Amino acid sequence: MNIKFLIFDKLTALDAVGPYEVLSRLPGSEVEFLAKEAGPKPTDTGMLSLVAARAFSEVDPADVDILLIPGGEGNRPMLSDEETLEWVREVHAGSEWTTSVCTGAMVLGAAGVLEGLSATTHWAHMEGLAKYGATPTSERVVREGKVFTAAGVSSGIDMALTLVAEMTGPKVAQAIQLGIEYDPEPPFDAGSPEKSDPAIVEFIRNLEGQPA
Amino acid sequence: MNIKFLIFDKLTALDAVGPYEVLSRLPGSEVEFLAKEAGPKPTDTGMLSLVAARAFSEVDPADVDILLIPGGEGNRPMLSDEETLEWVREVHAGSEWTTSVCTGAMVLGAAGVLEGLSATTHWAHMEGLAKYGATPTSERVVREGKVFTAAGVSSGIDMALTLVAEMTGPKVAQAIQLGIEYDPEPPFDAGSPEKSDPAIVEFIRNLEGQPA
Repeated sequence: MNIKFLIFDKLTALDAVGPYEVLSRLPGSEVEFLAKEAGPKPTDTGMLSLVAARAFSEVDPADVDILLIPGGEGNRPMLSDEETLEWVREVHAGSEWTTSVCTGAMVLGAAGVLEGLSATTHWAHMEGLAKYGATPTSERVVREGKVFTAAGVSSGIDMALTLVAEMTGPKVAQAIQLGIEYDPEPPFDAGSPEKSDPAIVEFIRNLEGQPA
Repeated sequence: MNIKFLIFDKLTALDAVGPYEVLSRLPGSEVEFLAKEAGPKPTDTGMLSLVAARAFSEVDPADVDILLIPGGEGNRPMLSDEETLEWVREVHAGSEWTTSVCTGAMVLGAAGVLEGLSATTHWAHMEGLAKYGATPTSERVVREGKVFTAAGVSSGIDMALTLVAEMTGPKVAQAIQLGIEYDPEPPFDAGSPEKSDPAIVEFIRNLEGQPA
């Protein structure tokens, strides 16, 4: 199972590393991080870099079984980069699964993958999906055929476990979940806008800026 | 707030990136990844590298406010590496908070930090804590004064949010939680050994190998 993560400068690290930690443990999987140019990609905080092993142009789109696109403010230039969008389209044409986390959905949208589908993204960017012909859906993980979109940042862990269960049945997914001891105990029940103080929701909405 | 993550070859990526995603969003924080030698550090799967910006020898231990040590099979050599352990001891002597995720606790233990304290680690490695004079404790996040230890892999997210709440009060922690949309919905209630199929527990215990 060839799994490719498409990363970029100023990605949100956990968008990628949450599902990486799940999918890399799937027996027989091979996860590789790609970008427009190979090399270290600084995250959106500038405080960490993840390494893209190769340029996506070195990878035959027909060889990609699962594509995952994480989010982050740095993906905005990709939305109009025809080389990237064409590669995503070609991958999607032959993929088993095409997936995104957070604002990675906008790249799928710009490539035309989400046209006519329900999809999700980070709650503060939900409206941006409509311009790509998608129906914004406030669920943590949204599946439409072979397309999975996940909500903000940490939701990629839930999406990846759901995907593994879909591919292999519950036992492998449960084993991976136990391996990463994913028995979450958030100190607050405040992880979605519906559950949060409206002043905090407004604060984060302003921080996130305009939808992509 | 100077926050240093001590990484190494064959670390478990999510151990570090979960709490990084939380702590890097703390206003005024500066997170930096350090290692014995600067440069890309391949994770335990070999499928991703995180970059250590500097060698820890370049950082004055007195300048570290928060230390975080992630886990991963690659930390075993650190347990007998006196240069690393001495740096950890010196950091701990002046830190505001000294923390670990997963088997990162073994490095704190080997440095003498956990002597006489309750502590936690990945469930499959829990017994290993005793040899460092710690009392193994099956809780997801364990606090002893300024020392926080977290359970396996994904638990670092909960630990970091708890730490932020402790430092700044609940509102900042809740804002970060909402920013990363941490409203977990695991597809199974199977993330701890108590909740899992015993056959799966045994399988993962064997995969994890002997306690460090």
